[in-house]
Amino acid sequence: MQITSRQAQVAMQGAEATARELGLAVIIAVVDGSTHLKAFHRMDGAVLGSIDIATRKAVTAALFQCNSEDVWEYCKPGASAPSLELTNGGLAPYGGGIALKWIDDTFVGALGVSGGTIEQDTQIARAAYSAFRALMS
Amino acid sequence: MQITSRQAQVAMQGAEATARELGLAVIIAVVDGSTHLKAFHRMDGAVLGSIDIATRKAVTAALFQCNSEDVWEYCKPGASAPSLELTNGGLAPYGGGIALKWIDDTFVGALGVSGGTIEQDTQIARAAYSAFRALMS
Amino acid sequence: MQITSRQAQVAMQGAEATARELGLAVIIAVVDGSTHLKAFHRMDGAVLGSIDIATRKAVTAALFQCNSEDVWEYCKPGASAPSLELTNGGLAPYGGGIALKWIDDTFVGALGVSGGTIEQDTQIARAAYSAFRALMS
Amino acid sequence: MQITSRQAQVAMQGAEATARELGLAVIIAVVDGSTHLKAFHRMDGAVLGSIDIATRKAVTAALFQCNSEDVWEYCKPGASAPSLELTNGGLAPYGGGIALKWIDDTFVGALGVSGGTIEQDTQIARAAYSAFRALMS
Repeated sequence: MQITSRQAQVAMQGAEATARELGLAVIIAVVDGSTHLKAFHRMDGAVLGSIDIATRKAVTAALFQCNSEDVWEYCKPGASAPSLELTNGGLAPYGGGIALKWIDDTFVGALGVSGGTIEQDTQIARAAYSAFRALMS
Repeated sequence: MQITSRQAQVAMQGAEATARELGLAVIIAVVDGSTHLKAFHRMDGAVLGSIDIATRKAVTAALFQCNSEDVWEYCKPGASAPSLELTNGGLAPYGGGIALKWIDDTFVGALGVSGGTIEQDTQIARAAYSAFRALMS
Repeated sequence: MQITSRQAQVAMQGAEATARELGLAVIIAVVDGSTHLKAFHRMDGAVLGSIDIATRKAVTAALFQCNSEDVWEYCKPGASAPSLELTNGGLAPYGGGIALKWIDDTFVGALGVSGGTIEQDTQIARAAYSAFRALMS
Repeated sequence: MQITSRQAQVAMQGAEATARELGLAVIIAVVDGSTHLKAFHRMDGAVLGSIDIATRKAVTAALFQCNSEDVWEYCKPGASAPSLELTNGGLAPYGGGIALKWIDDTFVGALGVSGGTIEQDTQIARAAYSAFRALMS
């Protein structure tokens, strides 16, 4: 099962609403469960460097079916897989990428946010996830 | 001057409405005037091969500030720049990419469509352009 | 729905049996419906150049959910999308890549063969497909 | 002397049997002594991120004719070759890649495993090696 346009749209709207509340211009990328781009939006004023970062966070989350920052547990100093972040064309092992799980926790895709601090990007990604999950009810 | 989110959104909606009328699932990519991705949508059911093609058409149109098929005049057999299509990471010198020009014909970005025949993709891109230009009035 | 290991294994065995009958050493690549590698085998004696060709044929078939040679109709001289073969990192628009469709013609993946002539590679890919489809009964 | 299909197959079967005992879905890549892919299998359910990791572990082991984690001794903090892991397109200097040596310790190829913890991947790779070496008797 792969993410639908409707699910992607609602998740992106949830992200953008929170970004606006925070006064931020961010970039949001949504990929399907096989890392292929499904939807993308760069808010007016977002820096160009965040295009790749948002996409890479989404891809990182999709590749391992977890949140992007969870990958850091494996490659941080002293952990078991040093330089794991060099695989798959370069991972983004920090906050802002989130795995999207649907009914029965079926993994359907991932979303990445970049444009604020890592804490802000993470907050925005969580808001996107809440909006996405609200579609289930 | 660069394309705004509002302009990109309206252009994409124009494209999608026409794609639906034609019974097609297409991919639409919008880039700004400097070829950086602004917005992207893969309609449910579109083939994965069209992700790169739609994006490449938009980039081709942005790189030369013309429609993607116009580039073919320079690289077709017997023309003056054979293999021009190999530049810039690979051009897409066929229909479906369109330069977006605003008031006073100021170039602000480009849009690419892939998923139908070249004729259909071109028709959808033109519909996107009409929707985009209608914002001016 | 994505291809299973069992399906991939049976398809590859079908390919290898036919390659042996033809006295050929070939390479067989199987990808899932989203172009990610599922299984791969290089028969003893196959040339190294065929590693990329077999994989690219499988990816080409997966990207467009058709046989690899069908893509040539769009990019051959005089056709509507010249240099389409430059997209997606380089396509392989010639025989030997085959889309794998399961019950109800659901697309589940693709297989690519390289090592013989294009006619031989195509024959071997078809034998793989027959073996794969025979699993259905 | 390069690894044969028979040797690769037996090594992969040894890896898969152990992965199943551990209840894991892993990816196994086998390369020849010159780093070219010989055989590959993604077990049903393995995450997509492990495709590149398994392959990279095998390539790392083949490039230096040692186990992948041995490379870490050269690039770990304070060691003599900082950033060595950035060479060769990115190394995987952690467990799960193993050099395959045949009679008289002749190096013939390498195998990489990814999908479990580093300890599990290493255990599975060792089981593959044992199965491979058992062919000698």
